[in-house]
Amino acid sequence: MFKKKDRYVVAVAGATGVVGREMLEILEERKFPVSELVLLASERSEGEKLDFSGKKWTVKRLTKDSFKGVDIALFSAGAARSLEFAPAAVESGAVVIDNSSAFRMDPKVPLVVPEVNAPAIAKHAGIIANPNCSTIGMVVVLKPLHDKAKIKRIVVTTFQSVSGTGKKAIDELAGQTVALLNFKDVEKNVYPHQIAFNVLPHIDAFLENGYTKEEMKMVHETRKIMEDDSIGVTATTVRVPVFRCHSESVNIETEKKLTANEARATLSAAPGVLVYDDPKRNIYPLAIDVSGKDETYVGRIREDESIPNGLNLWIVSDNLRKGAALNAVQIAEELIK
Amino acid sequence: MFKKKDRYVVAVAGATGVVGREMLEILEERKFPVSELVLLASERSEGEKLDFSGKKWTVKRLTKDSFKGVDIALFSAGAARSLEFAPAAVESGAVVIDNSSAFRMDPKVPLVVPEVNAPAIAKHAGIIANPNCSTIGMVVVLKPLHDKAKIKRIVVTTFQSVSGTGKKAIDELAGQTVALLNFKDVEKNVYPHQIAFNVLPHIDAFLENGYTKEEMKMVHETRKIMEDDSIGVTATTVRVPVFRCHSESVNIETEKKLTANEARATLSAAPGVLVYDDPKRNIYPLAIDVSGKDETYVGRIREDESIPNGLNLWIVSDNLRKGAALNAVQIAEELIK
Repeated sequence: MFKKKDRYVVAVAGATGVVGREMLEILEERKFPVSELVLLASERSEGEKLDFSGKKWTVKRLTKDSFKGVDIALFSAGAARSLEFAPAAVESGAVVIDNSSAFRMDPKVPLVVPEVNAPAIAKHAGIIANPNCSTIGMVVVLKPLHDKAKIKRIVVTTFQSVSGTGKKAIDELAGQTVALLNFKDVEKNVYPHQIAFNVLPHIDAFLENGYTKEEMKMVHETRKIMEDDSIGVTATTVRVPVFRCHSESVNIETEKKLTANEARATLSAAPGVLVYDDPKRNIYPLAIDVSGKDETYVGRIREDESIPNGLNLWIVSDNLRKGAALNAVQIAEELIK
Repeated sequence: MFKKKDRYVVAVAGATGVVGREMLEILEERKFPVSELVLLASERSEGEKLDFSGKKWTVKRLTKDSFKGVDIALFSAGAARSLEFAPAAVESGAVVIDNSSAFRMDPKVPLVVPEVNAPAIAKHAGIIANPNCSTIGMVVVLKPLHDKAKIKRIVVTTFQSVSGTGKKAIDELAGQTVALLNFKDVEKNVYPHQIAFNVLPHIDAFLENGYTKEEMKMVHETRKIMEDDSIGVTATTVRVPVFRCHSESVNIETEKKLTANEARATLSAAPGVLVYDDPKRNIYPLAIDVSGKDETYVGRIREDESIPNGLNLWIVSDNLRKGAALNAVQIAEELIK
């Protein structure tokens, strides 16, 4: 279905957003063979100019007619816009790599982290979904351990940065911080509560079972990407006053015993993973250090003595890169291989 | 051994510290029957004057001779000073309520959270230990659930505020935040890495098994306070850029099934606990709201579907009050009852 070429017409829907801009940077950085760039956004951003490969490209308004001649369309404009416009892009002959939650659990749509399940890409019918940022970092690290020792259960608590919410949330954290340091009242527009100097156990909407959508994404997406519905997953997702990178405290129970050293050795050989684990020298993954990095960092690898086969891990990945833009571009790279 | 009186001579060792000052506030607030106050600190703070009950009290230097005539000595001056001076206080006839880790795991020393194990106080031989801040909030909430359904295993990840480290850490978070917002380099004196806009999976020193002392305190102290060594506990303790209150993501596995509603009902009747759990109205415990509160707040109570008998909870308590000063004063109140 997808025709290989020397260079491709690439559309970016949501080009002016935090992730959209990151996509352009990564396409350029990794020398993705782009013949022409189609930058799409809402009416508000129409006419803006963005740099790519030493040229200025004008942002056009996203419509159903935006995709004529487009080979690959990277969507990062929210689930509602993906639902509205992705089918039109597919109709026009493009392959859509969608960053939203719109199609992730659709059985006809592959949900892909290339290091974990690249072969699933071949089964696409026009749309390939990019997983949720908090899921991507976790599965890149857990898949090699699952292959080695079979993971039975995952208990995860996240520390997610505000850039996952977008530019307005970045401004809100900075603005609230300045206000508080000047003894002024904080303004709340993006989050229901103050995020500066606080932590919010609330990401995305609440569901009937008491979990948030973000938490249930971690359950369902992990199973789909790891291609194993027997894995038990329970998640608590928390927003923290950090600008970039998601940190995760992950506890796993495996069928076979895996020592901390065996886990470290396995992960040292795993694609996309950097073992950063020398606590006695104060070396462990930190959001501020992983910012801008492609690898998912893992450290604090310890055997959990409360069960026979348990491990604790501390995982940090750049939510805008591996958690979003980089993973989407990696999918595109697999597609054109 | 401890003689009941109408009013008591109370010493506070470490009176000028963050917790020491909180102790004075709480003694006053709760009208603890103080006949005389003996404020003790290091040489550096000698001569400082602190308010208590409308009077100024002069801080004296902590020595082995500081405790003549003292009935109750509240220690919050670090483990080294407790080890050095607490035995002298006991020798002088005082009962020591020690906030440090020095004596917590000593089998002759009761480790007490009054709502959980007040009767243990009677067994003291001069010293009663106040548990670690991150443990206190957790056990206040978990004990009623343990009584109801027997907890087999706890997986906890903490979000701990900088005030747990003391005044210098509060200044470091504020100073680093200001520096970053002014595009200046951050200074690091208290923590090995930047704490502003970052999270550090590192509290207290690292041990041979890869865990921090703080993490192992949560394991050992929880078992001792709950008086059940069969409970499995594994912890990941994390410092977050929050000034006050520790938040905790707690996953428990119980022997008997406990629904979220049953847990909520049990906790609604539990002493020292406030169920704050209406997520659809954005009501869940937050560090900024629990600051200054005596109760430990619990919310986000959900059944964990990855195991038959699992629950997730989000617990927030004021680390300076219930996590330190308040709990110590509550122990003193039990002592004089």
